[in-house]
Amino acid sequence: MKIAISTGGGDAPGLNAVIRAVVLASIRRGWECWGIRDGFNGLLDPQQCTGEPVMRLDATSVYGIGALGGTILGSTNRADPLHYPVRQADGSVGEIDRTEELARLLRENGFDAVVSVGGDGSMAIAAALHDKGVRVVGVPKTIDNDLDHTFATFGFDTAVGFATECIDRLHSTGYSQHRVMVVEVMGRYAGWIALHAGMAGGAHAILIPEIPYELAAVAAAIRARDAAGHHHSLVVVAEGAEPVRGERTVLAGAETGRLERLGGVGARVEHELAGLTGKECRSVVLGHLLRGGSPSAFDRVVASRFGAAAVRALALGQGGVMVALGDGAIGTVPLSEVAGHTKTVPLDSDTLATARELGICLGDQA
Amino acid sequence: MKIAISTGGGDAPGLNAVIRAVVLASIRRGWECWGIRDGFNGLLDPQQCTGEPVMRLDATSVYGIGALGGTILGSTNRADPLHYPVRQADGSVGEIDRTEELARLLRENGFDAVVSVGGDGSMAIAAALHDKGVRVVGVPKTIDNDLDHTFATFGFDTAVGFATECIDRLHSTGYSQHRVMVVEVMGRYAGWIALHAGMAGGAHAILIPEIPYELAAVAAAIRARDAAGHHHSLVVVAEGAEPVRGERTVLAGAETGRLERLGGVGARVEHELAGLTGKECRSVVLGHLLRGGSPSAFDRVVASRFGAAAVRALALGQGGVMVALGDGAIGTVPLSEVAGHTKTVPLDSDTLATARELGICLGDQA
Amino acid sequence: MKIAISTGGGDAPGLNAVIRAVVLASIRRGWECWGIRDGFNGLLDPQQCTGEPVMRLDATSVYGIGALGGTILGSTNRADPLHYPVRQADGSVGEIDRTEELARLLRENGFDAVVSVGGDGSMAIAAALHDKGVRVVGVPKTIDNDLDHTFATFGFDTAVGFATECIDRLHSTGYSQHRVMVVEVMGRYAGWIALHAGMAGGAHAILIPEIPYELAAVAAAIRARDAAGHHHSLVVVAEGAEPVRGERTVLAGAETGRLERLGGVGARVEHELAGLTGKECRSVVLGHLLRGGSPSAFDRVVASRFGAAAVRALALGQGGVMVALGDGAIGTVPLSEVAGHTKTVPLDSDTLATARELGICLGDQA
Amino acid sequence: MKIAISTGGGDAPGLNAVIRAVVLASIRRGWECWGIRDGFNGLLDPQQCTGEPVMRLDATSVYGIGALGGTILGSTNRADPLHYPVRQADGSVGEIDRTEELARLLRENGFDAVVSVGGDGSMAIAAALHDKGVRVVGVPKTIDNDLDHTFATFGFDTAVGFATECIDRLHSTGYSQHRVMVVEVMGRYAGWIALHAGMAGGAHAILIPEIPYELAAVAAAIRARDAAGHHHSLVVVAEGAEPVRGERTVLAGAETGRLERLGGVGARVEHELAGLTGKECRSVVLGHLLRGGSPSAFDRVVASRFGAAAVRALALGQGGVMVALGDGAIGTVPLSEVAGHTKTVPLDSDTLATARELGICLGDQA
Repeated sequence: MKIAISTGGGDAPGLNAVIRAVVLASIRRGWECWGIRDGFNGLLDPQQCTGEPVMRLDATSVYGIGALGGTILGSTNRADPLHYPVRQADGSVGEIDRTEELARLLRENGFDAVVSVGGDGSMAIAAALHDKGVRVVGVPKTIDNDLDHTFATFGFDTAVGFATECIDRLHSTGYSQHRVMVVEVMGRYAGWIALHAGMAGGAHAILIPEIPYELAAVAAAIRARDAAGHHHSLVVVAEGAEPVRGERTVLAGAETGRLERLGGVGARVEHELAGLTGKECRSVVLGHLLRGGSPSAFDRVVASRFGAAAVRALALGQGGVMVALGDGAIGTVPLSEVAGHTKTVPLDSDTLATARELGICLGDQA
Repeated sequence: MKIAISTGGGDAPGLNAVIRAVVLASIRRGWECWGIRDGFNGLLDPQQCTGEPVMRLDATSVYGIGALGGTILGSTNRADPLHYPVRQADGSVGEIDRTEELARLLRENGFDAVVSVGGDGSMAIAAALHDKGVRVVGVPKTIDNDLDHTFATFGFDTAVGFATECIDRLHSTGYSQHRVMVVEVMGRYAGWIALHAGMAGGAHAILIPEIPYELAAVAAAIRARDAAGHHHSLVVVAEGAEPVRGERTVLAGAETGRLERLGGVGARVEHELAGLTGKECRSVVLGHLLRGGSPSAFDRVVASRFGAAAVRALALGQGGVMVALGDGAIGTVPLSEVAGHTKTVPLDSDTLATARELGICLGDQA
Repeated sequence: MKIAISTGGGDAPGLNAVIRAVVLASIRRGWECWGIRDGFNGLLDPQQCTGEPVMRLDATSVYGIGALGGTILGSTNRADPLHYPVRQADGSVGEIDRTEELARLLRENGFDAVVSVGGDGSMAIAAALHDKGVRVVGVPKTIDNDLDHTFATFGFDTAVGFATECIDRLHSTGYSQHRVMVVEVMGRYAGWIALHAGMAGGAHAILIPEIPYELAAVAAAIRARDAAGHHHSLVVVAEGAEPVRGERTVLAGAETGRLERLGGVGARVEHELAGLTGKECRSVVLGHLLRGGSPSAFDRVVASRFGAAAVRALALGQGGVMVALGDGAIGTVPLSEVAGHTKTVPLDSDTLATARELGICLGDQA
Repeated sequence: MKIAISTGGGDAPGLNAVIRAVVLASIRRGWECWGIRDGFNGLLDPQQCTGEPVMRLDATSVYGIGALGGTILGSTNRADPLHYPVRQADGSVGEIDRTEELARLLRENGFDAVVSVGGDGSMAIAAALHDKGVRVVGVPKTIDNDLDHTFATFGFDTAVGFATECIDRLHSTGYSQHRVMVVEVMGRYAGWIALHAGMAGGAHAILIPEIPYELAAVAAAIRARDAAGHHHSLVVVAEGAEPVRGERTVLAGAETGRLERLGGVGARVEHELAGLTGKECRSVVLGHLLRGGSPSAFDRVVASRFGAAAVRALALGQGGVMVALGDGAIGTVPLSEVAGHTKTVPLDSDTLATARELGICLGDQA
């Protein structure tokens, strides 16, 4: 048996632990294990890759990598095989589906199966490969925690842990300077990181994509704290958080133009809260800091279990499935059921209820 | 409504986050909230307590404590109300059941309900109070992760995280000095901490109470690593790990006496592995280091959810239950079902299978 | 003896450790110790302050604060007593010198001496107070490490440590995504943080105010790495770093306008390097994250020594001096010699030479 | 030019950063750089070494190692060339001086110069090699900070930082359980680690080799805290701390025997304080945890500067010297002046004075 492993999309802490587990569990069964560089680009576009586009992986290749962030294989979301960018006759850039070709290349390279690690996009590619006769097992990866069908995956815990550490730090400077500190974290469609890091870090307001926000409510919460003698406040904002319709009322005319030029939602919230409260506000964008770094113990263990479970699934003859964490145990889900489901924060979750009971403003008038 | 909160048994990171959540969620409902010092000793033995044996808790009392380790209420397992130590007429120490008296004291102090945070022992006390007419909700606490009926609780994640950091550190010194490093971690009846920290930290052998160990197997694994050019090895041992019957063969005569004098299992394993492998071995006992410190983000969130859920249960008129984490959501379990069930590592768990597939020796001949 | 302590300017990790040491060392001598809120605003503008504008400090007030970031007294640079903002008759804002009034207020409050903790600005205020007959001892504070006359001060080590941790994190994501990561750190006039964190974090280029940069040199270094098979690069930029004269050639016309709107130097470098190298670039601004957080052990010790030394100086009858760290021992420097000297990175320092020998590009053509 | 680098004695965080700097600074000058395994054993006893006993080092060999603990070359103090163990005719183990042979082997291998990184012992070997005509530059290494002639070296800051983190953790569990926590740290001849970590961690008593201790004084300090309502105390003990003469009075007869069997000074202090105060005491030995782990930013920078300075010294034709950190700048000291001087904590240092002024008991009756 000869298998290939690929890591796609944005990187997340734990990818290397998955790779290590896949390699060690394969070797133990006498299989041969190879890594494809840069998602599937090592096969589709080998001349663009660093070093060997497809590399043999043995115990030495993965020695000690379980504790390292990133992925030794490289990871990219720039050239999705389902929507591969091509320059067209008229000079514009179009896209084509190259999964048929990818399936052929995998066969030509002698791969009996593929372990594809990635998010929603990678699972869609994996499903397409499965439809074209490739035996493939997916491993879910999403730092945002927004993949459905799995209780948890790796990367999220590390991101929440570091975001919490950053919030802890901003408390002390905010306190000393009587400021409102606004922290923007990842989370385009789901507010998991903002909610968990905000609760853990003792934030006073948390704005998530699931709840359109009114900054008037946040400003009222900040004023209430001021009145109680607490002159600093900490607001955590998910990058995908959006105001309720029609809220852009604070800044008019030329100012609106300036607002548009401000980067993300963090800068916008900082700017508007300064206007609404008259207080000094500062924003920090954690962004890339949350992707890197050594994975937390939790993420290393889950990633290892996923990698080993993927090999176990292949050993059992399975294909077309994604490994997933159920209530304490690893199982599998058909790839066909996975794609396109985003797991957002349920509005009736006890975590949201807890946030409110701790006195955290969620940007609505509740 | 006037409620009391008590924290019992050994401390675990997250206790203060529970207290904070109980207090804030109570205040929000207009309730009055009090803390009992040192388990239930603030009521049973007030003159032995520091400061006020029963203290009013308001928003100021719990400001910022969510990120702090330990418990502001103190915590003790020396004077269990069910088995309270008393000096008898003949000078010896016996024990009596003081839960009846405790129930009376709670009523006399005007408490309508109690939130009792603790482990197995505290849940047994809570069950006894419930039987005596006290409305009580339990919050599970076990750093060892060995409480049944709840998917997870606080403290464990922090302990595993710090143990992993320590193992990471011991790798580099072990590597440089070609040594076998033995790390003893908590876990009297269950090997969860050893298993998770060992896997996350890249240990080469993990010994847990669930699998009686043969050091000959560990020594063979160490020799195999030596033969492959890896001259250091890292062994994680749970404090409750035990050898298979009849294994104490390495040291004879006077030496056995010396062995007995060695502290815990870590020192024993160090000593015997040195004899079996001829390599330099060193052991480190993490013990108390794992109980202290600021809780991880995960533990802060779970602890907050537990605290808020306990108050929510009381608001719904519940009593005689323990809050518990199911598959993603908080629920309750009758206290009568909780006591006496230890959740050990299932021998067929995928985590153990993963450990073996990563090449980790589990001390048996598998 | 009754003394006052004030913390001014931006906050830095270690301020609370100074306060604690001043208080404990004073109490031990039987002195009375008070804290002034928000720099000197507790006296000059008491109605603007939170809670008590001047607060009695005893052992309980400072219990456990040595490990906390920020300052319990608050800290501000908005209302410098030497240049106090006043609204003038015509509505514009002017400024007046209120140090005479401040000296009077200190006397009226019965303070025999003042410990003034802060940076260049605070030392100038301290010198002015000394000239007006107030016995004052300064404690140097600068997170940027740019105060002359002292070998080191607190805050810098914590900032460098956390910046290094952030750089470590950005390596793994940069590596996986083949990106150029640009990290902007504090350092308006001096590049100490950038230089030390960049060297510790293994940066490939470091841009500091002391060396005007040419991005062409940085781009060449990045291309050389690419050619050697290293497709990610990490650039650390001090906020005060500036291009050599005339370098703004990359972007012309409308683009230049857009560039101007980009925030700081980090965004500018990111943008221009993308143009020069054709690689994906991302920037992160660490800013406020570096001010907050628990001080490092080094900073706690230095801060404690400074606080105790300030009290010792007062006990010896000294005034008009700043405590300073010489070669291993604490001494004092006349305040009159302190002001206005910025300690920049010497161009002939062995640290800069080391950076070059490690192959780090410093933005010049050397 | 062809140079060799060797790391000897116990490992310390920063060794790899020295190696990296030596290699990169050498390559930059067009030199060839080799590493000797396991101190000098790669030459003296090659068959005992892992892999290649002498290994070529290039930029790839040292890529990214600056952030790693330990030493890629291995490090040993078991076979000191000056006192090399040999089995004699009668079966006993004697020792011989093999530095003459080592000098010959270095010449035979074509090495023009040697960079020898290590502590007191390694500097003595380096001095001997210098006397025998080998060009050698020493780099000081001591985690205990007890090497004279250099203001600071690497390893100490990392050890103090981690010890402080451990003490921070023990505070919360000690507080919750009303216990006395005793922490034993490294420091056989000098108390630098204990003093700095103890001050930074807010210890209540610190025992160092420089001040013979009386536990009666420590017990009195603990009782005074109890009386003031603080029922936990934290005692930091350097492994080399010793009681004043005749203090072993607590335990008599059979008990004394048991005491002797207790491991180090930490267990002894725990045991005796329990007897003297009647309080629950627990001890933790940090030992090996302090040697490992990723070096702090400070240590990485100092180690890099030392490595580059050693190469610079060689480039200037120097030999027989040790690089050293003076007041902010790197210099060199003749090896002949280095050996045998231990830098202990001066009894009149302001750091000790500060400790007393913070109310820390130093084990004497002062």
